[in-house]
Amino acid sequence: MINEELYKQYMGLMRRIADVRYSVAVLQWDQETYLPPKGADFRGQQIATLTELAHELMTGEKLGEVLNKLVAAEGLSPQQTKNVSITLEDYNKQKKFTSAFVRKMSETVSASFHAWMEARKQNDFSYFAPKLAELVELKKQEAQLLGYEKNPYDALLNEYEKGATVEMLDKVFNDIKTPLRQLLNEVESKQQVDDSFLQQHFNKQQQMEWGNYLAKELGFDFEAGRQDLSEHPFTTNFSSQDVRITTRIDEHDFANMTWSTIHEVGHALYEQGLPAEEYGLPLGEYTSLGIHESQSRIWENCVGRGKEFWQFYLPKLKTFFPLQFQNVEVADFVKAINKVQPSLIRTEADELTYHFHVIIRYELEKKLIEGSLQVADIPAYWNAQYKQLLGVDVPDDKHGCLQDVHWSHGSFGYFPTYSLGSFYAAQFWQKAQEDIPGLANQIATAGTTQLLLSWLRQKVHGYGKFYTSEELCKMVTSKTLDSASFINYARSKYNSLYGN
Amino acid sequence: MINEELYKQYMGLMRRIADVRYSVAVLQWDQETYLPPKGADFRGQQIATLTELAHELMTGEKLGEVLNKLVAAEGLSPQQTKNVSITLEDYNKQKKFTSAFVRKMSETVSASFHAWMEARKQNDFSYFAPKLAELVELKKQEAQLLGYEKNPYDALLNEYEKGATVEMLDKVFNDIKTPLRQLLNEVESKQQVDDSFLQQHFNKQQQMEWGNYLAKELGFDFEAGRQDLSEHPFTTNFSSQDVRITTRIDEHDFANMTWSTIHEVGHALYEQGLPAEEYGLPLGEYTSLGIHESQSRIWENCVGRGKEFWQFYLPKLKTFFPLQFQNVEVADFVKAINKVQPSLIRTEADELTYHFHVIIRYELEKKLIEGSLQVADIPAYWNAQYKQLLGVDVPDDKHGCLQDVHWSHGSFGYFPTYSLGSFYAAQFWQKAQEDIPGLANQIATAGTTQLLLSWLRQKVHGYGKFYTSEELCKMVTSKTLDSASFINYARSKYNSLYGN
Repeated sequence: MINEELYKQYMGLMRRIADVRYSVAVLQWDQETYLPPKGADFRGQQIATLTELAHELMTGEKLGEVLNKLVAAEGLSPQQTKNVSITLEDYNKQKKFTSAFVRKMSETVSASFHAWMEARKQNDFSYFAPKLAELVELKKQEAQLLGYEKNPYDALLNEYEKGATVEMLDKVFNDIKTPLRQLLNEVESKQQVDDSFLQQHFNKQQQMEWGNYLAKELGFDFEAGRQDLSEHPFTTNFSSQDVRITTRIDEHDFANMTWSTIHEVGHALYEQGLPAEEYGLPLGEYTSLGIHESQSRIWENCVGRGKEFWQFYLPKLKTFFPLQFQNVEVADFVKAINKVQPSLIRTEADELTYHFHVIIRYELEKKLIEGSLQVADIPAYWNAQYKQLLGVDVPDDKHGCLQDVHWSHGSFGYFPTYSLGSFYAAQFWQKAQEDIPGLANQIATAGTTQLLLSWLRQKVHGYGKFYTSEELCKMVTSKTLDSASFINYARSKYNSLYGN
Repeated sequence: MINEELYKQYMGLMRRIADVRYSVAVLQWDQETYLPPKGADFRGQQIATLTELAHELMTGEKLGEVLNKLVAAEGLSPQQTKNVSITLEDYNKQKKFTSAFVRKMSETVSASFHAWMEARKQNDFSYFAPKLAELVELKKQEAQLLGYEKNPYDALLNEYEKGATVEMLDKVFNDIKTPLRQLLNEVESKQQVDDSFLQQHFNKQQQMEWGNYLAKELGFDFEAGRQDLSEHPFTTNFSSQDVRITTRIDEHDFANMTWSTIHEVGHALYEQGLPAEEYGLPLGEYTSLGIHESQSRIWENCVGRGKEFWQFYLPKLKTFFPLQFQNVEVADFVKAINKVQPSLIRTEADELTYHFHVIIRYELEKKLIEGSLQVADIPAYWNAQYKQLLGVDVPDDKHGCLQDVHWSHGSFGYFPTYSLGSFYAAQFWQKAQEDIPGLANQIATAGTTQLLLSWLRQKVHGYGKFYTSEELCKMVTSKTLDSASFINYARSKYNSLYGN
């Protein structure tokens, strides 16, 4: 009885913090979608103030007291126990940061974001470098404050993927590099596919409608979310009942909007599937970024670049763009949307070369945080790595080290979760096909992906942070992360597309 | 030197509070424009939490200390002194409310807003009544907490228009009722004008473009603001550098969007003209709602329904809607957009009957807060008053007492500021014409309203709360509020339009 009262207090405190954090998310969403340019400075301050307030609330004495009583209490359910223990861990971590540090970080992030925007406009990394250097210093301080066993970068990796370390990722990437390179070589020895029909003119409004149709078909609940335009597609949420995705539209590239939409819908379906009654508590939040990314990848790639999906949806697509696709067959369409070709831009990369983009960023970040690479040397390092690993010449910074927004957000340690997500996705996809008889057939004949969504809701979405990513992966697939699944998936896909 | 340091502390504390308050405004703006329906409940909580936090910050001991030191300090500029004294007044007022009361109010407002939405959908006031009754009780408590000399409604009026009382408003409305009625009788005895060409079909997208064009022409800075759609047009701001207006579009009524846009632009020009360096301080905020409304009205009515304006802009309008307006002459256009006719909906009322809409609401609110009218009796009272004062039969609640959003927001005492705004506008407009030689001519021949905007920036916008509305009015026009200016303005306008 007393514990029940205590747990209620804990929930009240946490929901208040969540209200502030989600308000920050609203301010950020608005910043990326609708903010007029002159509003940027005050917006940066507003975000910094709310971030600081959230931190103050999260490190408040009252919360500490309640948490310490609750960890010693009896009679809590396993779910309640898990919420409390994760929160206490987070509480102790947040205590390591002063409010001044949190505010400084938030302000530096805002300034860096605008410097990055300016640098992109000027197509010159040197506009970004000074702010980025400040941010890297702050991230190094953050790593020291958080603490680590072997590598300072471990402390930052752990923020996005609990338990991830340089040791673990070095192994994952080393394991995959050779088979990936080999597969890539095989594909490159075959005749290249023709994807020219994807580069016709596709009207913006019509693309938007097609994207909304597709999102709805995949199960995105527009009563509990919306889709807007932004420079860089992303998913955010302000509760499981308000999940926002964004996309961008290139009128001369059909692929850009379509698979970014499916990707973000994958993220959004996860958020919409988190338990609303756990709002503000760890069990109401996603497991890890790697698992989040597994959800976007399973929809974008395993489903959305699959033959079955387009057997059903190509005829639908032809009603949106009859002229552009009238003579295109399913087999040719699927080949085109899976075209493998080393390229400059991560977000436009195919499923094979993609991981080399990540590996380059991972190695670069590791060196930056260790201090063995200086910010000013990023462009040269970047360009050399792209030449060496992907064989491409980087013409300018915009197509090189300025392409991604992450560093300007202070997100160091984020990129590796993209690869982890692909690998988890391949494992989940394999298991889903085993668990759901006739899944591929249902997709091909009726476009029904509802069975997969239900499976994911039950196996993944509903748990929130109850399991770690590795525990979850083991529970769902009987194995921990195993990149061999991804290699098998990729080999089977590209062998059938590029022939033997 | 010490005072300078103190003043800086004060500014820092105030800007932090402003950051939270403006964040609430962002959340509310999103609620009215883009929020998906299922997100409403959590959004209500988020707004309540931030409102509570702003109140906690505004009543914090630190701020109290700094303020009390500053009022006793020497060497502050008149501007600084004014900021401090207004803030101290506000501080002492906020201290009268507990956090629990503030949260309760915020939550009740959210619930009332949704009840009002549902009642409108059902077209039945009884869906709104229970929540409204709760809110009225809270507003009565608020009046008691704030204190008043003669009438509890005075306490609420004072929140929107400092110094406004029942005694003052009874006089203002009594003074105007008879001449207004007389003028209305005169107009009604003349032949009615033909405005049928305003009710053709006007494409939504084309209207939006026309509205944006007009806003830009009037001086709205789209780099520091934007226009979106919402069910009810409004203006909000998150700094003077980010001012948002909204509009609604009726494809079968040209007037709806156009004058609501000009109206909101009037509000927005005021906000964009407030001094950015006073962000978060009283001198960075509008004088009063009456003065705010004077800015929307001077643009909407004095400028935007004037003959000169359309001498220049009707030809422009014809390029947007050539078919609809090809045979329309300026004189007929101006008559049509000034058509006088008693009607049901306040926001669509002409400049004469408008004030009867306000008077009905004012008397009703006074009775509600005094306790001489019960919430359940609102529809009957409303309908009887509309019959008596305007001679119209109210067919249902949606066209009657459910038409305005204000009560669901807890805004009792707000409506009278609409009439005060019209009266201040007429005084300012008369003075502007005296001060700016050739203003009318410049508008008619070149569409140039920049001279008026500069005049308003200098005479009104730049001061923020440095003067009260009555002080400002006196400074600008050498007189305090005098509704005779409005009657003169109206008589001259309608005599010329409806003939003698």
